[in-house]
Amino acid sequence: MFVKNHLSAVACAVVLAAGALAVSAAPLTLEGQGSFAAGGTVVPAQEKYDPYHPKAEAQDLHGDHAFVRWQKPVDARRFPLVFLHGAGQFSKTWETTPDGRDGFNNIFLSRGFSVWLVDQPRRGGAGKATVPGSIAGKSDEAFFFGQFRMGMWPKFNEGSQFPQDAESINQFFRQMTPNTAPYDEMVNARAMTEVLKRSGRAVLVTHSQGGGIGWQTGMMSDNLAGIVSYEPGSGFPFPEGEAPAPLKTSSFFGDFPVKIVPVAEFDKLTRYPIVIYYGDYIPKSPTTHPHEDYWRAALELARLWADCVNRHGGDAKVIELPDAGLRGNSHFPFAERNNVEVADLLSKWLHGKKLDVR
Amino acid sequence: MFVKNHLSAVACAVVLAAGALAVSAAPLTLEGQGSFAAGGTVVPAQEKYDPYHPKAEAQDLHGDHAFVRWQKPVDARRFPLVFLHGAGQFSKTWETTPDGRDGFNNIFLSRGFSVWLVDQPRRGGAGKATVPGSIAGKSDEAFFFGQFRMGMWPKFNEGSQFPQDAESINQFFRQMTPNTAPYDEMVNARAMTEVLKRSGRAVLVTHSQGGGIGWQTGMMSDNLAGIVSYEPGSGFPFPEGEAPAPLKTSSFFGDFPVKIVPVAEFDKLTRYPIVIYYGDYIPKSPTTHPHEDYWRAALELARLWADCVNRHGGDAKVIELPDAGLRGNSHFPFAERNNVEVADLLSKWLHGKKLDVR
Repeated sequence: MFVKNHLSAVACAVVLAAGALAVSAAPLTLEGQGSFAAGGTVVPAQEKYDPYHPKAEAQDLHGDHAFVRWQKPVDARRFPLVFLHGAGQFSKTWETTPDGRDGFNNIFLSRGFSVWLVDQPRRGGAGKATVPGSIAGKSDEAFFFGQFRMGMWPKFNEGSQFPQDAESINQFFRQMTPNTAPYDEMVNARAMTEVLKRSGRAVLVTHSQGGGIGWQTGMMSDNLAGIVSYEPGSGFPFPEGEAPAPLKTSSFFGDFPVKIVPVAEFDKLTRYPIVIYYGDYIPKSPTTHPHEDYWRAALELARLWADCVNRHGGDAKVIELPDAGLRGNSHFPFAERNNVEVADLLSKWLHGKKLDVR
Repeated sequence: MFVKNHLSAVACAVVLAAGALAVSAAPLTLEGQGSFAAGGTVVPAQEKYDPYHPKAEAQDLHGDHAFVRWQKPVDARRFPLVFLHGAGQFSKTWETTPDGRDGFNNIFLSRGFSVWLVDQPRRGGAGKATVPGSIAGKSDEAFFFGQFRMGMWPKFNEGSQFPQDAESINQFFRQMTPNTAPYDEMVNARAMTEVLKRSGRAVLVTHSQGGGIGWQTGMMSDNLAGIVSYEPGSGFPFPEGEAPAPLKTSSFFGDFPVKIVPVAEFDKLTRYPIVIYYGDYIPKSPTTHPHEDYWRAALELARLWADCVNRHGGDAKVIELPDAGLRGNSHFPFAERNNVEVADLLSKWLHGKKLDVR
């Protein structure tokens, strides 16, 4: 922690508050920042270690943890925002945008929230796993340009909010990083519950594949004040007897899977408010466009899922950004040119649910 | 950047300066923070991309970049400190210590330096490579406990400054993360020169294997104001005709290699001051202790190398921490219980070389 001199902390906070009234941004004053590993497993050594003849099986193996970087502004709001990235991404997802502007981490720190950025197990700074992995070193960049609804490579969608200069595209493709071992939703959810034990009651903000981890974490952890999910993909859990059939799609991933869980587990998702955001370029009806049809199905399933959560007494809402007046967003609304407006929409939701209290 | 209101920035800096006089630590006020990818290569697509039949060879592949997170305090000193981790580590090396105290990032931010933390290519957040990789998922933790001179597993060295509680050891083993593709010193040095183009003239602070990358970068980049190296291992470059024979060791790595470079390249290492620090538990003469003998040879070579740099008109100094009154340090002095004293020693050196000017 930085704070040893409380007086100067308070004095500074006052100066910042004044500045914050004058303009939307001011210098950021942190009470502290740090990083740590959360959760994970240990594979114990099978035999006594001989330091002169070191053998792998004679050594413990730590791995499958999450890696967390946290920052706390002075006079922080009560509930931290805990951010979990999506497939192929890491905590960078929430930082400086591809075109070099503030990401959600800086924006919400400036708005007084503690920000926790997570690298899920077997990704980024949490690369140490207890099982082997192999990385092909082959490109899927044009594929994800389509799957992420920036457009159909190399052409951007008409009116896209994604920055289209060469350096922004270069930065974006370099913020992808591979799994160091096989993806495992339960390994990730277990680590996330440990992250939330450290944060205390918090709002979990997920993206894409992280959405499924978030719903699972939401059933396992007692530390959630709310869940915000940007463009959740697969992993919507339905209670036994209420699950729709898998949705047919023309996507490269085939039919859209539905996850089934016991009712008692599902009902834990009714303990806190949930909001789901989707961007633009999602068709209303089935299409042969493989990427857009994937998200058509995801949105359809998200609506069915939110209805189910609400039938069970929960508070889940699905918002299409175009319906809120925000057009041109891809799969990464929080990192595109209008990301301050996207953040404003989230701030309004947090305020409405009293999740921005101090 | 956070600063849009310069007045509040200045007002706040003044408040902090006052606080800083009263006590050593105050809340940290940042002018800005961000992250980006630096350098790297692109393997171009070999054919036209068909979005309905995606093939890897029809897509560009970006990889082999460094990933940088930077923070700039208000009223920052002129030269940023650019930190490069060592083998098996990533930028976390410089952050919260295994026992949960401030690492060198927070310490030197509090002391007014801009801090740039680098993940080298094919490590941590810079995991995307242009070549395949495979990760064994096997343990080398007890081996590195010895190689890092914490002791001989599971016994810590007498008087070790390394925190010895179970959670600190758990945190330490989890801050290791594997290469996502083969280690390549030149790939790393090329990326580091791009990092330094973004930082402008800076002090490069390296650790262990990063030392070799640092010397190579020091020959390739014109943006170095100085180099600080904690426990550099292999990779000392000597000019043709002045290289010692490889040093014999009883280490697991065999004889200690010597790198040979053209004199004109070597002489570029004489353009700025260099300081090298080694910790405790390094014997003065050859030993059958494989880990300690490795560092005995590294220190011996470092002294020969510094003498050579100075013969060529440079300014290189090797400091053993015990000779400076700091005892009990392992391979990670900047992260151990006395890391504030280790930082004080560096602050003194930076001040002596006028590298802490504003």
